[in-house]
Amino acid sequence: MEIQQPYLLFLGDARDTLAAKTAGGVAYWRPGVSVGQLRLPGCVVDLDLPDMTIAEGVAAGAKTLVIGVAVSGGAIPDEWSGLFRDALDAGLDIANGLHRRLVDLPGLTEAAAASGRRLIELRDPGTIAHVGSGLPRSGKRLLTVGTDASVGKMYTSLAIERELADRGVKCSFRATGQTGILIAGEGVPVDAVISDFISGSIEEICPANDADHWDVIEGQGSLFHPSFAGVSLGLLHGAQADALVMCHEPTRTHMRALPHQPLPSISDCIDANLAAARLTNDRVELVGFSINTSALSPGEGETFRKSIEDQFGLPAVDPVQTGVAPIVDRLVG
Amino acid sequence: MEIQQPYLLFLGDARDTLAAKTAGGVAYWRPGVSVGQLRLPGCVVDLDLPDMTIAEGVAAGAKTLVIGVAVSGGAIPDEWSGLFRDALDAGLDIANGLHRRLVDLPGLTEAAAASGRRLIELRDPGTIAHVGSGLPRSGKRLLTVGTDASVGKMYTSLAIERELADRGVKCSFRATGQTGILIAGEGVPVDAVISDFISGSIEEICPANDADHWDVIEGQGSLFHPSFAGVSLGLLHGAQADALVMCHEPTRTHMRALPHQPLPSISDCIDANLAAARLTNDRVELVGFSINTSALSPGEGETFRKSIEDQFGLPAVDPVQTGVAPIVDRLVG
Repeated sequence: MEIQQPYLLFLGDARDTLAAKTAGGVAYWRPGVSVGQLRLPGCVVDLDLPDMTIAEGVAAGAKTLVIGVAVSGGAIPDEWSGLFRDALDAGLDIANGLHRRLVDLPGLTEAAAASGRRLIELRDPGTIAHVGSGLPRSGKRLLTVGTDASVGKMYTSLAIERELADRGVKCSFRATGQTGILIAGEGVPVDAVISDFISGSIEEICPANDADHWDVIEGQGSLFHPSFAGVSLGLLHGAQADALVMCHEPTRTHMRALPHQPLPSISDCIDANLAAARLTNDRVELVGFSINTSALSPGEGETFRKSIEDQFGLPAVDPVQTGVAPIVDRLVG
Repeated sequence: MEIQQPYLLFLGDARDTLAAKTAGGVAYWRPGVSVGQLRLPGCVVDLDLPDMTIAEGVAAGAKTLVIGVAVSGGAIPDEWSGLFRDALDAGLDIANGLHRRLVDLPGLTEAAAASGRRLIELRDPGTIAHVGSGLPRSGKRLLTVGTDASVGKMYTSLAIERELADRGVKCSFRATGQTGILIAGEGVPVDAVISDFISGSIEEICPANDADHWDVIEGQGSLFHPSFAGVSLGLLHGAQADALVMCHEPTRTHMRALPHQPLPSISDCIDANLAAARLTNDRVELVGFSINTSALSPGEGETFRKSIEDQFGLPAVDPVQTGVAPIVDRLVG
């Protein structure tokens, strides 16, 4: 799945930053990739990009209109379809990460056909039909794993990629979810592929590379999440990782969305991830922890991170508070 | 996915029993479910069922024509489409487990629409879109797991179901692959579901049941197969099994289709499966081994089984040679 850049970011009538977090992630991690933002009346989010109409976005070079706003229930209002038809007529592709599909909106299929532009559904795995082999391949790979879903794996991966790039190390962020794919401009929505092809889809997006090149792969879910662990395991096997970073949110009391399901211990989670990862790379190592301390006071956060460092003898960063330099030190010295 | 029975089994021009093993499995495990076999000139397989034309099959009560023959490369010859159109016109559904889809054969879609019959693709997961919860549910469940793919999990599951039924125990075979679905008349092709729904699809096919009812669930793949382990893990979590049976083929030298990939030790494989299964059922136990000794001499096979029994203190059967009674003894005494 590839998305043409630069983007015009569509924010709809977003009422808070959370609703526009996909667009916010793109603007934060790829500052140069969006020519502007398109906001409807009532939108309270501002990404500090020039406000543009579709015509202005096209004139500024935009190739894709990105629907970067979450809508309650995932539904795209029918009222937006006129705007989207205008975008297609003006020569833009449209990339959509929401559950409602663009083809279900009135007139969009016809408008796309007439203009020769694409309706890109970020939840559609496209033509992925590659069975993973587990065959050794060259290059270095890091994968973020987690005690739970939604604990900061994408953010951590992007922070590590940025730190590697800042040090002049050859590296690529490899996206496995909707927002990550928009940020990278390519990737695979691994939770949407046919289950026979989970590991194969990951082998496809991070193929053999230079011996000193790092792929930083966005993890998904957790081996301990009963809804999605199969995705996490296939991702581990396809990644063939040299380095794992364990992501954790210390205030969570149960697995996300499942009040009956306890969190694993960090120690059990490390053991299970390393054991599974060794199936395709027996040199895999845990290189550190990424702790999302946003729900703790600064003092509590630091105390928690230090306790993890003392227990496991590895760096425990908060990518927002401390950066990820201590982890990258272990990768490239 | 549900398939109407009884069947008319289509054997094509099968040149050996392996080519017709799907039909053979249906005939062996569900002797009453097929009214006859339909064979083309050159077919050398005989399932000891009456030879029938489509008209004769319909007259005998058949509801579904089952394509029970493997074709080299998975392709269905175009020449068969006339026969299949006749089947639809005569009022039969058609169930297809091959990779080539029936809708790609000339005229079949139109014939199905005209007759109101169904083209059932056994590799199509249908409308499965259920996220697994891992919530505890009533009833007893057994899952067959394996050191590798294709080591006899379906056969073992069906043998255990038959032994339970022979003893008057309430039980159901739960199918997760194409042949199993044809045998049961229902099930889910778990390797074809969207990866987010692996465990959920299994929760759907073996829902809460009477406290003394056993679901015997057909396992797939292996936690140690780098191509498909995600499917196996989601299956373990969705099954919420009380009992696991470890299936093994003792002459295999590497994981199926992957010459570079060594087999796990049986002991490691047991530990990994029990640890993963405990996520959704902490009472899970290994209850025995099913050893496919077909590639060994009778003496070698018995020696191998005894060595497993001595090492682990649990029954090690060959379902073909010894039956599965010692395993069922552990389930129901």
